[in-house]
Amino acid sequence: MSELRQNLITRDWVIIATERAKRPDKFANTKKTIVAMPPHRADCPFCVGNEEDGTLETCRLTDEHTGWKVRAMANKYPALSPTAERLRISSGIYRTMSGIGIHEVIVEHPRHDLTTALLTVEEVASILLVYRQRYLEIRKYPYIETIVIFKNHGPTAGTSLEHPHSQIAATPVVPNQFRRRIDEAIRYFDDTGECLFCRTLEDELAARERVIFESKDFVACIPFAALSPFHIWIFPRRHSSSFDDITDEEIIGLADTLKTVLAQLYYGLNDPDYNYSIRSVPTAEQGTKYFHWYIAIIPRVTKQAGFELGSGMFINSALPEESAEFLRSIKIPDDLNLRQT
Amino acid sequence: MSELRQNLITRDWVIIATERAKRPDKFANTKKTIVAMPPHRADCPFCVGNEEDGTLETCRLTDEHTGWKVRAMANKYPALSPTAERLRISSGIYRTMSGIGIHEVIVEHPRHDLTTALLTVEEVASILLVYRQRYLEIRKYPYIETIVIFKNHGPTAGTSLEHPHSQIAATPVVPNQFRRRIDEAIRYFDDTGECLFCRTLEDELAARERVIFESKDFVACIPFAALSPFHIWIFPRRHSSSFDDITDEEIIGLADTLKTVLAQLYYGLNDPDYNYSIRSVPTAEQGTKYFHWYIAIIPRVTKQAGFELGSGMFINSALPEESAEFLRSIKIPDDLNLRQT
Repeated sequence: MSELRQNLITRDWVIIATERAKRPDKFANTKKTIVAMPPHRADCPFCVGNEEDGTLETCRLTDEHTGWKVRAMANKYPALSPTAERLRISSGIYRTMSGIGIHEVIVEHPRHDLTTALLTVEEVASILLVYRQRYLEIRKYPYIETIVIFKNHGPTAGTSLEHPHSQIAATPVVPNQFRRRIDEAIRYFDDTGECLFCRTLEDELAARERVIFESKDFVACIPFAALSPFHIWIFPRRHSSSFDDITDEEIIGLADTLKTVLAQLYYGLNDPDYNYSIRSVPTAEQGTKYFHWYIAIIPRVTKQAGFELGSGMFINSALPEESAEFLRSIKIPDDLNLRQT
Repeated sequence: MSELRQNLITRDWVIIATERAKRPDKFANTKKTIVAMPPHRADCPFCVGNEEDGTLETCRLTDEHTGWKVRAMANKYPALSPTAERLRISSGIYRTMSGIGIHEVIVEHPRHDLTTALLTVEEVASILLVYRQRYLEIRKYPYIETIVIFKNHGPTAGTSLEHPHSQIAATPVVPNQFRRRIDEAIRYFDDTGECLFCRTLEDELAARERVIFESKDFVACIPFAALSPFHIWIFPRRHSSSFDDITDEEIIGLADTLKTVLAQLYYGLNDPDYNYSIRSVPTAEQGTKYFHWYIAIIPRVTKQAGFELGSGMFINSALPEESAEFLRSIKIPDDLNLRQT
């Protein structure tokens, strides 16, 4: 007998298909043998020495040995570009606007063969520092409404580039899905006087069934109504509506949490492809009481099929409590040993 | 310079990434050589002679040669099942209900090696007749709120079974995405006195840039703000909010339209994986003026990545007008020749 659970943050009812449920380790990536990649590739545009002339670079954390630790740069093939005029055309049912916006790439490490799960906490913190710096800068542009930071890891997750990298896209509209979730969060706030995310965090900490890692400032858990197997949320304990509000100390805590959770996936499910995104309130609504920024991690271990596309509902064939227990049990080896090459 | 277009039916802004746009034929399925499958497989549960004992069967169109033309049956591993009580439990932020509902499989043809694009119009009409019959029956169940008919074609679209089949899922809740789109359709109706879908159909027929096929009762087009490459909508010309309202004559017209459009994809893009779904109003709202049933076809020619998952917005790297022109130009061979085995 399956069960429906409502995800109050996305407002979706999710079918937890217990009758078709698989054991957590059955979601492991079976196609990939983790092969040693070279630490440097002559043909990789993100490797040290292959940087373009620097005109695209927007941020660099320097390092005395390799020249840089983390770099941000304008995407060479941007989906949105800052060189446009902000134009809107409306003709009957047809509404169009120019593709003004920002689309940057963050090269996360000089080495080609690493991934967040294998980095040190300090290295992950450097990536997060660049995220914050670019977020703070980009939100000053008057045509930007929403900033999304995201990572595509592996081909199923939409990337063909091996070199560790993530992206920032800043849009000239508030995405409809953001607006709808914000409406729900406002409604919850108006009804109860509480932030829905703070409430969720508190209840998950009390239940303890789905928490997979916690540090002083952050908590990672599988949602009660996870939309897909191993769907993970990371919340800051301190209420804050926008990622760029993160403090230096919190950056270290988030680096530890993000690295640990991604290592649980890496070792538990054999380096599955995944996406993560950092969701903040639209820039014009900074500082609200009703929205709480968070990171969503979506391992790409199952496929959306016609039911999901045709209804917007999800069928999840993993029991969130079992997935959480499984991830908590994963032993994470000392990553520095793995990096002797 | 990319362009944003708003899809008024889904309410999403879509980034039409013209700078990264690819020519239509570049979306063709390159991995698959169309190999002749056997017309019958001893190990296929849907092939003639391998039917289970019949206790799961809910509908059968008989045929004097093979015994049946199309069969519907309860899914052996259902996501939702009719044998449950309708129970809801609400405890703080946690809301749960029993997985009551219907989940059926429609075996579309006795032969293992065919697909909708290669069927005759009469054969496709038989499938649609079974859809209608099951829809009419299932909507009588008091615990059903929404009925979704869908098809997964190919592994990327979420199926591993080769034998041509589709599915019906009927849920005990209205999916949140349905509710939101209905709210927008109501708003449009209240503002203008018109059905948003009727208006879209009329404007697309006037513009003629994105229509790919039309018959007496149906029109197929690429949406102005298509969410992904070759995203297709099929609308009935007659306003009607629910698929089961389709007449016998319209079933023939829809069969012709669906078959033709799927054949355009089959021959134009080398049998791409795809999903389709038939979207009707929730059963309790049958007969409304504001909603119009339709079929959405989504070829799985690109992947959703972190930006899409993290914002709900889409980046489409195909220009809808070019995709439509390409599909219109595809010559469809006489399918009966292809079936001489």
